[in-house]
Amino acid sequence: MSEDIFKRIISHAKEYGFIFQSSEIYDGLSAVYDYGQNGAELKNNIKNYWWKAMVQLNENIVGIDSAIFMHPTTWKASGHVDAFNDPLIDNKDSKKRYRADVLIEDYCAKIEAKIDKEVEKAAKRFGDAFDKAQFVTTNQRVVEYREKIDSILSRMAKSLETENLGDVKALIEELEIADPLTGSKNWTEVRQFNLMFGTKLGATADTAMDLYLRPETAQGIFVNFLNVQKTGRMKIPFGIAQIGKAFRNEIVARQFIFRMREFEQMEMQFFVQPGSELEWYEKWKETRLSWHKALGLGEENYRFHDHEKLAHYANAAADIEFKFPFGFKELEGIHSRTDFDLSSHEKHSSKKLQYFDNELNQHYVPFVVETSVGLDRLFLAIFSNSLKDEKLEDGSERTVLSLPPALAPIKAAILPLVKKDGLPEFAEKIFNDLRLDFNVMYEEKDSIGKRYRRMDAIGTPFCITVDHDSLNDNSVTLRYRDTMKQERIPVEKLSEIIDKEVNMKHLLAKV
Amino acid sequence: MSEDIFKRIISHAKEYGFIFQSSEIYDGLSAVYDYGQNGAELKNNIKNYWWKAMVQLNENIVGIDSAIFMHPTTWKASGHVDAFNDPLIDNKDSKKRYRADVLIEDYCAKIEAKIDKEVEKAAKRFGDAFDKAQFVTTNQRVVEYREKIDSILSRMAKSLETENLGDVKALIEELEIADPLTGSKNWTEVRQFNLMFGTKLGATADTAMDLYLRPETAQGIFVNFLNVQKTGRMKIPFGIAQIGKAFRNEIVARQFIFRMREFEQMEMQFFVQPGSELEWYEKWKETRLSWHKALGLGEENYRFHDHEKLAHYANAAADIEFKFPFGFKELEGIHSRTDFDLSSHEKHSSKKLQYFDNELNQHYVPFVVETSVGLDRLFLAIFSNSLKDEKLEDGSERTVLSLPPALAPIKAAILPLVKKDGLPEFAEKIFNDLRLDFNVMYEEKDSIGKRYRRMDAIGTPFCITVDHDSLNDNSVTLRYRDTMKQERIPVEKLSEIIDKEVNMKHLLAKV
Repeated sequence: MSEDIFKRIISHAKEYGFIFQSSEIYDGLSAVYDYGQNGAELKNNIKNYWWKAMVQLNENIVGIDSAIFMHPTTWKASGHVDAFNDPLIDNKDSKKRYRADVLIEDYCAKIEAKIDKEVEKAAKRFGDAFDKAQFVTTNQRVVEYREKIDSILSRMAKSLETENLGDVKALIEELEIADPLTGSKNWTEVRQFNLMFGTKLGATADTAMDLYLRPETAQGIFVNFLNVQKTGRMKIPFGIAQIGKAFRNEIVARQFIFRMREFEQMEMQFFVQPGSELEWYEKWKETRLSWHKALGLGEENYRFHDHEKLAHYANAAADIEFKFPFGFKELEGIHSRTDFDLSSHEKHSSKKLQYFDNELNQHYVPFVVETSVGLDRLFLAIFSNSLKDEKLEDGSERTVLSLPPALAPIKAAILPLVKKDGLPEFAEKIFNDLRLDFNVMYEEKDSIGKRYRRMDAIGTPFCITVDHDSLNDNSVTLRYRDTMKQERIPVEKLSEIIDKEVNMKHLLAKV
Repeated sequence: MSEDIFKRIISHAKEYGFIFQSSEIYDGLSAVYDYGQNGAELKNNIKNYWWKAMVQLNENIVGIDSAIFMHPTTWKASGHVDAFNDPLIDNKDSKKRYRADVLIEDYCAKIEAKIDKEVEKAAKRFGDAFDKAQFVTTNQRVVEYREKIDSILSRMAKSLETENLGDVKALIEELEIADPLTGSKNWTEVRQFNLMFGTKLGATADTAMDLYLRPETAQGIFVNFLNVQKTGRMKIPFGIAQIGKAFRNEIVARQFIFRMREFEQMEMQFFVQPGSELEWYEKWKETRLSWHKALGLGEENYRFHDHEKLAHYANAAADIEFKFPFGFKELEGIHSRTDFDLSSHEKHSSKKLQYFDNELNQHYVPFVVETSVGLDRLFLAIFSNSLKDEKLEDGSERTVLSLPPALAPIKAAILPLVKKDGLPEFAEKIFNDLRLDFNVMYEEKDSIGKRYRRMDAIGTPFCITVDHDSLNDNSVTLRYRDTMKQERIPVEKLSEIIDKEVNMKHLLAKV
């Protein structure tokens, strides 16, 4: 079912010029995608919404644009050279490669499914009297299953943490985990594989410098912390934001644009007094959630997921999860990163990265709270949530992409009812009057019904139809995408009505 | 002199948060730069101006956003694998590396200097009677110099074209060209060095795929040509535009952000009927020039440079050159690329990349006219042209960055004269009223004079000063950046005055 919805989303995204497989004529490049003519506009509008909300509306946040190439020591300092790894295992018979931890997690998921079955059976047996909470803590079989899962996962976590890869393999063998494709249990050793893409700067092997494509945009902010603070005369607390590409050589890249090898991040690092970070962390959690909710995709589709296991740099972390067609998944991360990054760059660069606090009359390395959105994920969240197949009253069907109007690629389509009698000229005049203010489209091909459907499918909030009466009453028919309501409107009122709905400032005012 | 101006530009760019050396705390990464808090805003505004002018205001142009990673066969088809090379030579004693063609060109430039000297001498001797055109064609010494230059350059061109690198080296030895740093003439062979950055996609050496970081964004448009044409129902002539990063492993990267290893392009490919391409080529030359001129940097600072030697894919090509502090240099290229790229992708992919022309009732591979701007170059052009040190009437000096107002990072600064008596509150109210419409700044630190100077230095078109009278007359002092004229303005008129000056639509209306 959700598999079908997902296919529908991918095919709609392609058919209407939102997302194409990269290098499709060469049979594609795995886990890399291109944004088409409507996708590029939607993506730009999402960026714009984020940038304006973070940078323009926060007096104490500025935005930068740092390069993808950075000095390689950056990634030593950040921990990526040593710790940004996936544990991989190959099946010797099938020659297929897997993430060892994913194999083990999938195994646990199967036990989890058995628990669900027991619960279901019992629920049927006991009817209204069924107390799930009590059942799962007292039913022996379920308790045993749960204990088994806990024991497997905690052993795996410990082995990975201590880099005991031999034990990860032992665990796979003890559980008799087989290659999901072939059933073979003939495994290689488990090895760590670094997820950064490497390249070489310079002309020959002997003089070349090993570079990485940045796996996150955050470090571009940290290395520029003092440059921005000093030249911008920033006072703590303040933030530095940026939008940009990042690259990860994912082994198992999947779920369309949800996990790509080349992707885009919108990150903000907020620099605070040591000790105040958890207060700011809570504040940013709420602020970011309300930014998402202002899009109107449904408040019930968001939830927090607080991390229990923290990364080496964090003392608190949470995800904002969104209900994708394939379940609740991470959309944005909010992390209290402590002074880990700045302190580590101090050590590796031998440059002081300290701030002088006038109020405290004291130098310190600031603590950092990070907010990090996956732009492509957010695109997928908005796109999939907006795509609807509707049954209409007259029995016909339509597909509508009910995007937040401020994010829609095209704001209004101007449509002459017929291609003669001066209607095109009248429509083009409206088009020319609106185009400097809004991204509008003129379209005269096909029947008006077909044109409405096409505009629905790409999420255009307004259709403006010019008919024969227009030439006399200087009015047009305005059709609203979501309600399909049609209204007769004087031409001179169009701009105001459209602006009220699509101007980003109205969306920003809600944040 | 121009060297000094250049240093001044680089230092102003850093001091005011426009451009920082990448990874500066690690002593930098050569020929890579980061955009700071004001640079990022200026760069975004430039992008916006281009995107709106090209995509929003041209009914038949759409924009896409394709990935940096592309299938490697793309670069075979485009010719970059085989022909995107620089001929390099090393000096065995100094271990320094040079571009062989640049060494030879520099040698010719020295002969050129001798010609100039002869001309100068003769001009002095003959005074008003001097006829330069006649002199250079008849003076034996000058004629010999000129013949020597021509013979050297034509031999080099032929050797490079036929890949006869041995003869390039022979030429260097015959001319007795020495290492400019050490004087040594002990050279290695000349070798071709490909300028693309390579990386590997996938987990291990045996399964990995060799990828390149794209050296231009154009190919992302060509491989998506049919996807966009079909899903967007585009009719020829039409264009596809995109803005994005490209990467070139330049040996001699220099002149600040003029030639970087990681840079950004704004490219548009315009697909036309075969045979009509030269007409469109002329049209796009004019259109693009007028887009540049609308910025108001001075019409005398632009000129066309028509290429005599054409690239393998072109049947006409010209640069729009801009007068940088280091002379007239390429800002944008307009190229008639024929059907080279699409035909080559047809061959390499075995996919038809043809368009069915309803009017001609015929299939064909369209011809392409390309417009390609270097975004960072354009940034440098605007920034360097706008930076002025002015002597004021009272004898004092100021530095002003007279950016086109629509591109300025901050549109207006709201400044309470003093930090008390309710002035900050009054100013903040103005700030809050304007911030949803414009990127504005509130600033209360330092004397009003210092604050004006800082705003001048980052190019803010308006300063709005709140004084004690403001509380009574609900008016403020509006100061104009370029003229420094000050006017008393009622608060409710501010928005309209600012909009008139900074709204991008007024700039677009001029194109």
